[in-house]
Amino acid sequence: MADVPLRELNYLTPLEVAKSKHMDQLASCGATGLLDPIAPGVAPGSDVANLAILGYDPHKVYTGRGVLEAVGAGIKLERGDIAFRCDFATVDDDFTIVDERAGRIREGAADLANSLNDLQLKNIPDIEVMFRQTLGFKGVLVLRGEGISPNVSTNIPIINSRIYPVRPMDDSIEAKRTAMALNEFIRRSREILESHRVNQNRKSKNEPPANALIPWGGGKTLRLQPFRRKYRLRAACIAAAPLIKGICKLVDMTVVDIPGATGEIDTDVMAKARDVSTLLQGHDLLYVHVGGPDEASHDGDIPGKISIIEKIDSMVNAILEDIDPEETCITLLADHTTSIKLRKHTGDPTPIAIACADMVQDEVEQFSERAVRKGGLGRIRGRRIMPLLLDLMDQNGDL
Amino acid sequence: MADVPLRELNYLTPLEVAKSKHMDQLASCGATGLLDPIAPGVAPGSDVANLAILGYDPHKVYTGRGVLEAVGAGIKLERGDIAFRCDFATVDDDFTIVDERAGRIREGAADLANSLNDLQLKNIPDIEVMFRQTLGFKGVLVLRGEGISPNVSTNIPIINSRIYPVRPMDDSIEAKRTAMALNEFIRRSREILESHRVNQNRKSKNEPPANALIPWGGGKTLRLQPFRRKYRLRAACIAAAPLIKGICKLVDMTVVDIPGATGEIDTDVMAKARDVSTLLQGHDLLYVHVGGPDEASHDGDIPGKISIIEKIDSMVNAILEDIDPEETCITLLADHTTSIKLRKHTGDPTPIAIACADMVQDEVEQFSERAVRKGGLGRIRGRRIMPLLLDLMDQNGDL
Repeated sequence: MADVPLRELNYLTPLEVAKSKHMDQLASCGATGLLDPIAPGVAPGSDVANLAILGYDPHKVYTGRGVLEAVGAGIKLERGDIAFRCDFATVDDDFTIVDERAGRIREGAADLANSLNDLQLKNIPDIEVMFRQTLGFKGVLVLRGEGISPNVSTNIPIINSRIYPVRPMDDSIEAKRTAMALNEFIRRSREILESHRVNQNRKSKNEPPANALIPWGGGKTLRLQPFRRKYRLRAACIAAAPLIKGICKLVDMTVVDIPGATGEIDTDVMAKARDVSTLLQGHDLLYVHVGGPDEASHDGDIPGKISIIEKIDSMVNAILEDIDPEETCITLLADHTTSIKLRKHTGDPTPIAIACADMVQDEVEQFSERAVRKGGLGRIRGRRIMPLLLDLMDQNGDL
Repeated sequence: MADVPLRELNYLTPLEVAKSKHMDQLASCGATGLLDPIAPGVAPGSDVANLAILGYDPHKVYTGRGVLEAVGAGIKLERGDIAFRCDFATVDDDFTIVDERAGRIREGAADLANSLNDLQLKNIPDIEVMFRQTLGFKGVLVLRGEGISPNVSTNIPIINSRIYPVRPMDDSIEAKRTAMALNEFIRRSREILESHRVNQNRKSKNEPPANALIPWGGGKTLRLQPFRRKYRLRAACIAAAPLIKGICKLVDMTVVDIPGATGEIDTDVMAKARDVSTLLQGHDLLYVHVGGPDEASHDGDIPGKISIIEKIDSMVNAILEDIDPEETCITLLADHTTSIKLRKHTGDPTPIAIACADMVQDEVEQFSERAVRKGGLGRIRGRRIMPLLLDLMDQNGDL
């Protein structure tokens, strides 16, 4: 949701331009400030940003994005597995990326994925590969077997970049075997996808074919301290993105599937709001994540970003109407800044607002990157949010 | 440059009183905040403050000030050498400091230093001593030889304090030998200096004689990761103080000698400004340091401090006229607070302003200790500056 001033918006940010009176109302009720998800100047991935916001130190626990995505997608990982985020993309004959999201393919993506179900490696038959499509162009690739390692060079899917062969990043036999396995998977999935009827159809409709899979963000399985043990709180998560669901599953939160939640700008935010009051029965903390503004920013879609922010504002309104403000603390934040100009994450701090009964309020009456700079919270880091909330909830009599 | 409110200035700070509209202009164009060079409440030496601001963790890399000064003075150190900052001072017959800067001696200081060139220790002849005068009253003492250690108690040169014999700080033979060597150096240099014609002259003119050398801040050689490797930036440094030049040489920046740059309040700031646009060709980052305000503060010289701040303002103006604001990020900061009342560094935060194209600006329109407290950067630490700038420069398209 957070961004920087845009020339196209007369040097305002999308959040400043969007009609968002309910978020402003929330900011008015509490204290606001600047949030550095990791630290000032660090442009974090969504993985480490959300881990930090939930109070887990990424420097200590993070092994790679893929395994969080895999858990979020409901894949039952075994000890020793390594998992990669793995995206459908459109590449040309030179293996240069023409569209790093294959036109945000949604329909037919599951069919394409199914065509890879029986793929067995020929050069390294003892490594099992499992590809699972998760949400739109997003997927997960799991490698299973003895003698594998995530320490290989993968390609980050960025438009116009060339996909290079995966290389081992150390001298181990495990890294060499894994690089060979990934290269065969990339090559053979490319062949299968190119000729698939879903892609023939897309080409005939002038849509970019999902003719390649790009694995990245590899990591090995990890364990995280359960949220309930760490904080003595029963927590639940409302999110569509497999990554967020994965993090929340790993810390043993209740993770619900929301019909209509796509993780993109057409997501059904009201469906998310509807589950809030239900889940608040039986849980002490809800983590509600909307991925749409980030996706719009990666697409450079200014109207789309403003529109999803306005939808989030309606969601905030619905939530505010459903809860008892004397009994509930609400924190509103962006988990990182995604610059719509650069179409990538930046290290700019994001706005945060915390509203709890009986807390010291500030005079900020707008929820925006600029307004919260005068806020009473000052400038804080992601990992301080949970301690702050625990303290405020205790004062609120909720604990 | 930073200070605290002074009774003599009607409870304003020198920076608030000085005419500094160009620094104010810079603050107006960007975001401002409070900078803790190390951490809130820590009064840092210039050495650790500048290391931290360049992104090097003093807790990990710092071995002592002397070696940074020695490198800055162009002394070629060998592995195993230990180096001390070593100041000319005026002492009385009791070895009590009457003037810890020997009246800021400049003329004749090199002659005094030369008189010590042939000094060889009698009690520990296998330790070689080399004294080099650097800038005015400042110098460096290097010890070379087997079996030496920087772990000895030295005297910080402060007015009215007694110079005590140097003692070993551990039971090692190395520390004992080093203490003996330093004590002989202090005693014998005292004898040579006292009778030197330069000092006879000074006494006849009622100027405090530079009749003693006080070694302090001892440390051993160290290696720092080159700036270019750490940040992928070609950097250059414009400074007079040997300490700053030493730090910048150690991280392998381009370090230029500026004629007329004295490190004191009579320094030629415009000479510094002139080199900026030249050096920006071929470098990604310039570090421009002006030592004068710190020196004026140590002297308790309020008009001098205001005057050098106004000179810095002219320098800022000249730099602003020379650069393209769409292509260049400028950061203005004080590397620590020096209280003119106490004549020493304090742990007060200093003002910082960052101006980059497209960044979220704040409403602060004055560069001062007080005004920036409402700034959009909040309160940040020295070690976050480089990550912040890297992120902003990336957004600016400079990287």
